[in-house]
Amino acid sequence: MIDINADIGESYGAYTIGNDKELLQLISSCNIACGFHAGDPDVMRETIELAIKQGVNIGAHPGYADLHGFGRRHIPMTHESLFNLMLYQVSALKGMVEAMGGKLHHVKPHGALYNDAARDEGIAQAIVKAIAAVDNELKLFGLSGSLVGEVAADIGLEFVHEVFLDRRYQSDGSLVPRSNPQAVIHDQQEALQQLEHMLHKGVVDTIEGKQIPIKAETLCIHGDHPESLSFAKAVVMRLTR
Amino acid sequence: MIDINADIGESYGAYTIGNDKELLQLISSCNIACGFHAGDPDVMRETIELAIKQGVNIGAHPGYADLHGFGRRHIPMTHESLFNLMLYQVSALKGMVEAMGGKLHHVKPHGALYNDAARDEGIAQAIVKAIAAVDNELKLFGLSGSLVGEVAADIGLEFVHEVFLDRRYQSDGSLVPRSNPQAVIHDQQEALQQLEHMLHKGVVDTIEGKQIPIKAETLCIHGDHPESLSFAKAVVMRLTR
Amino acid sequence: MIDINADIGESYGAYTIGNDKELLQLISSCNIACGFHAGDPDVMRETIELAIKQGVNIGAHPGYADLHGFGRRHIPMTHESLFNLMLYQVSALKGMVEAMGGKLHHVKPHGALYNDAARDEGIAQAIVKAIAAVDNELKLFGLSGSLVGEVAADIGLEFVHEVFLDRRYQSDGSLVPRSNPQAVIHDQQEALQQLEHMLHKGVVDTIEGKQIPIKAETLCIHGDHPESLSFAKAVVMRLTR
Amino acid sequence: MIDINADIGESYGAYTIGNDKELLQLISSCNIACGFHAGDPDVMRETIELAIKQGVNIGAHPGYADLHGFGRRHIPMTHESLFNLMLYQVSALKGMVEAMGGKLHHVKPHGALYNDAARDEGIAQAIVKAIAAVDNELKLFGLSGSLVGEVAADIGLEFVHEVFLDRRYQSDGSLVPRSNPQAVIHDQQEALQQLEHMLHKGVVDTIEGKQIPIKAETLCIHGDHPESLSFAKAVVMRLTR
Repeated sequence: MIDINADIGESYGAYTIGNDKELLQLISSCNIACGFHAGDPDVMRETIELAIKQGVNIGAHPGYADLHGFGRRHIPMTHESLFNLMLYQVSALKGMVEAMGGKLHHVKPHGALYNDAARDEGIAQAIVKAIAAVDNELKLFGLSGSLVGEVAADIGLEFVHEVFLDRRYQSDGSLVPRSNPQAVIHDQQEALQQLEHMLHKGVVDTIEGKQIPIKAETLCIHGDHPESLSFAKAVVMRLTR
Repeated sequence: MIDINADIGESYGAYTIGNDKELLQLISSCNIACGFHAGDPDVMRETIELAIKQGVNIGAHPGYADLHGFGRRHIPMTHESLFNLMLYQVSALKGMVEAMGGKLHHVKPHGALYNDAARDEGIAQAIVKAIAAVDNELKLFGLSGSLVGEVAADIGLEFVHEVFLDRRYQSDGSLVPRSNPQAVIHDQQEALQQLEHMLHKGVVDTIEGKQIPIKAETLCIHGDHPESLSFAKAVVMRLTR
Repeated sequence: MIDINADIGESYGAYTIGNDKELLQLISSCNIACGFHAGDPDVMRETIELAIKQGVNIGAHPGYADLHGFGRRHIPMTHESLFNLMLYQVSALKGMVEAMGGKLHHVKPHGALYNDAARDEGIAQAIVKAIAAVDNELKLFGLSGSLVGEVAADIGLEFVHEVFLDRRYQSDGSLVPRSNPQAVIHDQQEALQQLEHMLHKGVVDTIEGKQIPIKAETLCIHGDHPESLSFAKAVVMRLTR
Repeated sequence: MIDINADIGESYGAYTIGNDKELLQLISSCNIACGFHAGDPDVMRETIELAIKQGVNIGAHPGYADLHGFGRRHIPMTHESLFNLMLYQVSALKGMVEAMGGKLHHVKPHGALYNDAARDEGIAQAIVKAIAAVDNELKLFGLSGSLVGEVAADIGLEFVHEVFLDRRYQSDGSLVPRSNPQAVIHDQQEALQQLEHMLHKGVVDTIEGKQIPIKAETLCIHGDHPESLSFAKAVVMRLTR
């Protein structure tokens, strides 16, 4: 069985985003925002308690310090500063999880940081080293087959290959950027077929018309909108059949 | 010998405040800001490394989420939210200290939170419970003889009684508020005499003309300005003679 | 005809709140958040353009600098600082409105600042003076019959008396605080009746069983939730019949 | 006589930076931070009053929304969002200046935004259009001979060519980036000679060994450190001789 993960705990103060309670019933792993691109201590506490109650693996979901941009844009900083930023965010969530009686299972970088980690070696190293410095038994969730996986392997940090069923891939294994209108697979049948190919054949079709091997260890689902949530339910139902 | 502590790591981005390097050579315990009223992950990392190198006890110095007010004003929040805020800040600093090879020794609330803890039971309990939830072997630094010490004792958290040599006291043991022109002792001889009375006789003169017993386990010094730093040096020299 | 106003433009970055487009079709005046308790330059620009297009009176809706608390809590500051904060927020919105070809019509303080203005003379004066310093032809929307109205009159700033149909009143003319379970009128018939009494008899029943005179010049409606929006529609339909 | 300008009003809350009072006695134009990369309503108010008292031309000094990075790094955003951000900041400062009885004279983008404007047409246009939308009689201060000057000319906004005496130039007229160790001229005699060449011959030597024409309408000086302040005094004394 493939692990299913989702990003949760991204509300902030009076601002509510996502459908965390429903998502938590569908997933086996969650990634909880750490208060920089989204989330706050109240949201984190509540989300951690829900995840513990639901028996879901808890991950830290650190991002760039950019609430206004929701962590979706690259914020320039030195690798040293990024290391410190990761250390801070992962430590904060880990301490809160342990204070609530749980255990931190993994780390998954958010948004622009996730993308940067997949292709920029200095950024990947800063992230991997920070996680290892906090606890080298933590797993790292990242883009399947990407550079950050190799960096993690070099340092001895366990890497979990993440796949997307509704995003199109390029032949080098990267995702088609969102600026490209073909980035997202809107047709649910096509998305489910991509998932099936990834799971059963270990391959994915690329936008250039090739087929490349892909390792699918965890699947990312979304639940921000009513439609994405109901599709996520359909996907999970099919996977658990 | 009395412990000597100072608040450090309160710079932020391009903004520098304090004389941390000089202070670290004078003190036995430091209180490092946790990124909410002051400090940031870079400043925290650098300050932690300096403190470890200098062999100084490292404390977390959490405050209200109020960079603009530097944590000096009361921000209204529920006790639940304050508990979460403390959990987050103490966890973040603790994790960073441990990643750098050190060990967190104590927690000292900052500014308005320090004052609120000394007299508001709900606030004191939120702080004490959060510290205990992170690690019940942490010590709590607070106003000598104040309510937060009793709350800590009830829960079994070790309390360290803090005294000030340059602040005047009221007969209930509280500090004369800064709004009162008599709040601060500007005369260095008077300040040193107050310290001597506290240390050798266990008493302090109050603004109402009484003399009350006081327990002096740790002494707070400041080094923001050239004069405060040189006075701090004189105090420490006298104490270590 | 009574003016009908609503608070809009309170989204922030990726966080969406309220139903501004629907509300703008129901109201004659809007209060646009100024980027401190809510809102950001993008949201402000978009909201201003919508309001101009809809022909609705545009007001600035300044609040305490407290995004995390959504401006709902008192942030302690000097009257001088509050004056500066108001100057900044009102100027920012006014300049944007004028750059878009519109004209700023009024100012309505938000949340805790609205409540503070109704009863604290120093706060009321800071707000009134700041508005007058920016443009003494701006109107001020505030709690009907409250202290801030008198302060505005003293300085010669036009005050517009605001009433609520779904909030209960105390005999001194203040609103029953939200901490009291009777604060909000949940029964729609009762709310409509309160509105009718205010409009046609110029009185409101108080929680202590009295009836007090009240001046109703503008009515505040809400549209955050589907129910509040549909009730707002019903209210407006009844008023325009 | 060449205009002399400096960036001031960059303190924030308890954090003090720069020597505004001394600088204001040396310069004819000042650029006041607008609360996003630095500054806050209190600092702005105080700085505006000082500038008015000193009879110095007041400029808005908007920057990216990046207090932690002090506006020194590029924050990715659409041109539309940048336009809104400029509209907001310039309006806020302009309104405050007018409320204090002054008049806004110019706008000078800060840090990374200044550099981006000098070479990126979309960014330059967003800035120029926003300034013109607020008040098309405002002047724009920017890098002498750079792209933003042409963009301003196209729209009819008056551009003021700014030069630096202590920065080295490249043959395309751009500044040598700070990452290059030759970026800054540390030798005061060399800096003064560069200034003299710019003023009297209308040329500057470039790092590649060429000599290029340069228009010097305003000169930027700094006063953050005691040495930079005393050098600034020497420069101004020489210029006013």
